[in-house]
Amino acid sequence: MHSKHNYCVIMAGGVGSRFWPSSTKDHPKQFLDILGTGESLLQATFRRFSKFILPENIYISTNLQYVDLVKKQLPKLAADNIIPETARRNTAPCILYASMKLKKRDPLANFVVSPSDHLITDEAAFQEHLLLALEATGQNNFLVTLGIKPFEPKTGFGYIQFTNESAADFDRIKRVKTFTEKPDLEHAKMFLESGDFLWNAGIFVWNSNAILNAFDKYLPDMYSAMEQGWEVLNTPAEPDWIAANYGTLENESIDYGVMEKAKNVYVMPSAFGWSDLGTWGALEELLEKDTNGNAVINKNAILPNGLNNLVGVPKGKVAVIAGLDGYIVVDSEKSLLICKKEDEQTIKSYVNEIRITFGEKYA
Amino acid sequence: MHSKHNYCVIMAGGVGSRFWPSSTKDHPKQFLDILGTGESLLQATFRRFSKFILPENIYISTNLQYVDLVKKQLPKLAADNIIPETARRNTAPCILYASMKLKKRDPLANFVVSPSDHLITDEAAFQEHLLLALEATGQNNFLVTLGIKPFEPKTGFGYIQFTNESAADFDRIKRVKTFTEKPDLEHAKMFLESGDFLWNAGIFVWNSNAILNAFDKYLPDMYSAMEQGWEVLNTPAEPDWIAANYGTLENESIDYGVMEKAKNVYVMPSAFGWSDLGTWGALEELLEKDTNGNAVINKNAILPNGLNNLVGVPKGKVAVIAGLDGYIVVDSEKSLLICKKEDEQTIKSYVNEIRITFGEKYA
Repeated sequence: MHSKHNYCVIMAGGVGSRFWPSSTKDHPKQFLDILGTGESLLQATFRRFSKFILPENIYISTNLQYVDLVKKQLPKLAADNIIPETARRNTAPCILYASMKLKKRDPLANFVVSPSDHLITDEAAFQEHLLLALEATGQNNFLVTLGIKPFEPKTGFGYIQFTNESAADFDRIKRVKTFTEKPDLEHAKMFLESGDFLWNAGIFVWNSNAILNAFDKYLPDMYSAMEQGWEVLNTPAEPDWIAANYGTLENESIDYGVMEKAKNVYVMPSAFGWSDLGTWGALEELLEKDTNGNAVINKNAILPNGLNNLVGVPKGKVAVIAGLDGYIVVDSEKSLLICKKEDEQTIKSYVNEIRITFGEKYA
Repeated sequence: MHSKHNYCVIMAGGVGSRFWPSSTKDHPKQFLDILGTGESLLQATFRRFSKFILPENIYISTNLQYVDLVKKQLPKLAADNIIPETARRNTAPCILYASMKLKKRDPLANFVVSPSDHLITDEAAFQEHLLLALEATGQNNFLVTLGIKPFEPKTGFGYIQFTNESAADFDRIKRVKTFTEKPDLEHAKMFLESGDFLWNAGIFVWNSNAILNAFDKYLPDMYSAMEQGWEVLNTPAEPDWIAANYGTLENESIDYGVMEKAKNVYVMPSAFGWSDLGTWGALEELLEKDTNGNAVINKNAILPNGLNNLVGVPKGKVAVIAGLDGYIVVDSEKSLLICKKEDEQTIKSYVNEIRITFGEKYA
């Protein structure tokens, strides 16, 4: 099961501004124990993969700024398994860089690319799905993505429509028909009813040849720019070369840049208790509520005349939140947020106003 | 002007629970810089008196628990000028104890008794009023209280009705007709219109003979109990005697126990920019508001779609408070309070619930 050719790249470079004020640019969401489980989302993600991927085959891609945080949270991880990005870029450059490093280390590298800040509650099912996908991509030049079976007409996710055509002998892996951006509610309801749409979870599986061929074809400028550095990858000269060149790569997502264009794209309908923990609302769905519908992350608040609020107050602190209905109240060491749940998409712009008004250190 | 017989007793033993969470039992309101001026209310009160009372004649009466806080905030104060109460009692025992100590030190002691947690903005007028009152009580056995000229029909204050009869040659000091408990709004409006009602500010002026005679007459049990300790007052034996006896004294206020009963009670109509800072609402009246009526104590919050809120967030921290109308939001190191302004009288019961649910340290 721990195939020596199986790898994993955990992307941990995001800033998670929708989880402000708990998540800040200096200490973003993936490094937080946002669920109060005793481990950060990154630590949980690493632990989850280390059950079926050799630890020396697990890579963490992150911004240079967070390398020390990664080392602190994953002290057993070898320094060479951290891939520092010297500029903030979307997923395509990040994945291209990691894919080239893996291919140079192991021409037969076959790997998962995963976010670092999602929740998976059924780890056995997660492992089972990924091992099957890795088996498929070990034998075929497929680009496989995991699609979560939807149970609600969510408007906050991208959707993947699949056909009945299976990926070679892998009945559970289906050819993708379309990728769809975040739909309106009407479309989301249609997607849910149709039964052939899945949530795009941003978890990918492929071998290094398949993904590098796709980069070469669909993002040729990005590919040839990175190819210039092939000789220095995995050598002491790599950091300087990356520092000089990574920032020149296009700021493109893997979805838009590759997945929506490539022909050999497949999706594996999946169910393993997944949440992207994308917003405070997504977190709230997972939390226990009192009889008035209030969810208090650390159980350290009283809510007289309070209904349906989400409350996050640091451990060691308490709160009285009286007479609020449908609010998010999240307190952190440096910042306090109070806003209506329906305004949670506005949090990013609040953070921006905070940055402009009071300075970078609060964002 | 600095008469050697003029003294001052600043009462600093209260717990200020209506200002929770900024004010806690461990660190109550009088020790806070609640206005953001750079000094605590106690420090401001001490400074205000030290302009016309010899510093060695200023006493701070406080609970034993706060003696270290007083020493820290008033490092130049002599240890002998702190009067530690060994039990939480209302104003009558506190004033009796202090009055006896002053009388034993100086049979001609003539003094002001003042809260430690009020705001005075016109310090020159304050001083002028009190020096005149001290002049009157230096010559006469009057019990004088300062009454603030009302400008609003406040229901949160006690009122003092005065007559036209002056105190001896002191035209500005008038005989009291009645003390009135907190009125309803209708009565408060009548009081305001009548012109002969003043707000009871809890600031008293008298000489030690006058007040001790009144204690002897109207609170004879309390007086004779304290009289047993006369010999030990201002000696090294005092603390032990107080520890054994102070807690036996009745829990009575000076207003109810003495002022409402005595015959030689006078009031000086006063105006010197006074606020008792009794509630968050009282504080809010003093603060600058933005165009949406929001008052932010430390100017460290943004309030999108927010109207008429009072916000107190510690310095060094920021807040986004979106979509609230008419709320108090006060954050402290250990606790967060959010409640409607109209519910501020309920804060005491919230604090009690916090105490019961999470423990004494948060109250």
